[in-house]
Amino acid sequence: MKLFHLSDIHLGKQLNGGMSLLEEQEYMINQILEQARIHKPDVIIFAGDIYDKSNPSAQTHQLYNDFMNQLDDLNIPVLMIAGNHDSPERLNIGSLFMAKRNIYISTSLPETEDDHLMKITLKDDYGNINFYLLPFMKTGHAKRFNGDISNYTEAIQFMLDREPIDFNQRNVLISHQFYISNGKKPELRDSETIIQSIGGLDEVDVEAVKNFDYVALGHIHSNQCVGYEHIRYCGTPLKYSSSEANDQKVIQVVNIKEKGKLEKLKVKIL
Amino acid sequence: MKLFHLSDIHLGKQLNGGMSLLEEQEYMINQILEQARIHKPDVIIFAGDIYDKSNPSAQTHQLYNDFMNQLDDLNIPVLMIAGNHDSPERLNIGSLFMAKRNIYISTSLPETEDDHLMKITLKDDYGNINFYLLPFMKTGHAKRFNGDISNYTEAIQFMLDREPIDFNQRNVLISHQFYISNGKKPELRDSETIIQSIGGLDEVDVEAVKNFDYVALGHIHSNQCVGYEHIRYCGTPLKYSSSEANDQKVIQVVNIKEKGKLEKLKVKIL
Repeated sequence: MKLFHLSDIHLGKQLNGGMSLLEEQEYMINQILEQARIHKPDVIIFAGDIYDKSNPSAQTHQLYNDFMNQLDDLNIPVLMIAGNHDSPERLNIGSLFMAKRNIYISTSLPETEDDHLMKITLKDDYGNINFYLLPFMKTGHAKRFNGDISNYTEAIQFMLDREPIDFNQRNVLISHQFYISNGKKPELRDSETIIQSIGGLDEVDVEAVKNFDYVALGHIHSNQCVGYEHIRYCGTPLKYSSSEANDQKVIQVVNIKEKGKLEKLKVKIL
Repeated sequence: MKLFHLSDIHLGKQLNGGMSLLEEQEYMINQILEQARIHKPDVIIFAGDIYDKSNPSAQTHQLYNDFMNQLDDLNIPVLMIAGNHDSPERLNIGSLFMAKRNIYISTSLPETEDDHLMKITLKDDYGNINFYLLPFMKTGHAKRFNGDISNYTEAIQFMLDREPIDFNQRNVLISHQFYISNGKKPELRDSETIIQSIGGLDEVDVEAVKNFDYVALGHIHSNQCVGYEHIRYCGTPLKYSSSEANDQKVIQVVNIKEKGKLEKLKVKIL
């Protein structure tokens, strides 16, 4: 199963001084659609920060709406989660209607004991692949279930442990957090105004998610693995700061074959 | 064909002092859904001002989203236009997806010679009924087609004349403007902050629309005909000012039978 793994498209983002990037973002969207038409992935993932602001402008909403309509035309399942920049309520508009067209948007976390993460199962010749959609979350959210939870790693671990995941099947996690491995932070870019990792408070150790067959991450703007080859930030497809000027902008392509076989990650230049 | 004619639900409206009405509006929405389940209309019309503000709060978006999901469950066609309070771009989010489920939202006017008003045709035992959806418009919009247009009546007349309407069939217009008849203004309420009819600049003479079999109007908050029995404001279903305290709040029900036969308008108390 071939995945397009994208994140952090930040629709509506402005450069310093309020310069609009809507035209560049429209170009980026057309590139994504074009590459999807060429490479025909089986699923397209957006791992959070669809919008740049919780209250996007009318023009930004229009760009998003046009994007969703064009994704629908592709007839490829789309999986999307809310990042820390997204307003869950606004990203949720029309989502049940979109789900009927195989565009799945997860904006909310389990609230009660009976609630679970959105789980979408797709099939290929090797069987099921289960995608677990985990929108951006804070420690406080897990604390409502368990008051003893004291950090982000425990919170993420707790929220995943309560899901009935069959690890004999292939499973993919989509998540938007600040993941680290062995205390080593991922490489950052200036455009990541989200570096609120003061004292490491929001860090999640990848050990909490390593049992998934692939972990499609968003939040960090440069393409990189975190600790393991199958746990990866795809990076943002648009250059959002001068520190990103020399980055090679890519669409992360992943081919998941039989259990335990992740085909060499392929990268397409935009 | 039985129509529910509603308008001016103004989701997100606050009373003076910023008091939220979201709870009352949720109750109103439940009443509309409940009455639809009881009376089983063939179509539900919302003639503009779905939202109260062009930039609604996240909670208001959530209320709207829940409302659309519940309307979808009814499995009754819904026809909706943007009013002067609505942001066309925001009301448009997900609208193509909703249209596939028979919830039609018209937010934009024809821009080019080839563009036309959204037209939805439903059938009953007597044949077709064509619904023309005309979102709120200003004179300036028609001027891009014809520079000689100098007032709202001419503008509306022009935008309708360019539609290929078969007046041998039954036709319904959905519109959100300030309609008058013989120079007589409709009865107003304090909550209509839209009374910008200074010097009558935004007035539309109903003669421009009288050839439709029914004209479902929004903009004015009290239930009333304008000049003709088949041209009607349905009024708002919620009491939005003290001057509306004694208004009987209703859902306007209209039964369109064979051409020229409009069944006595029925009114249901909320």
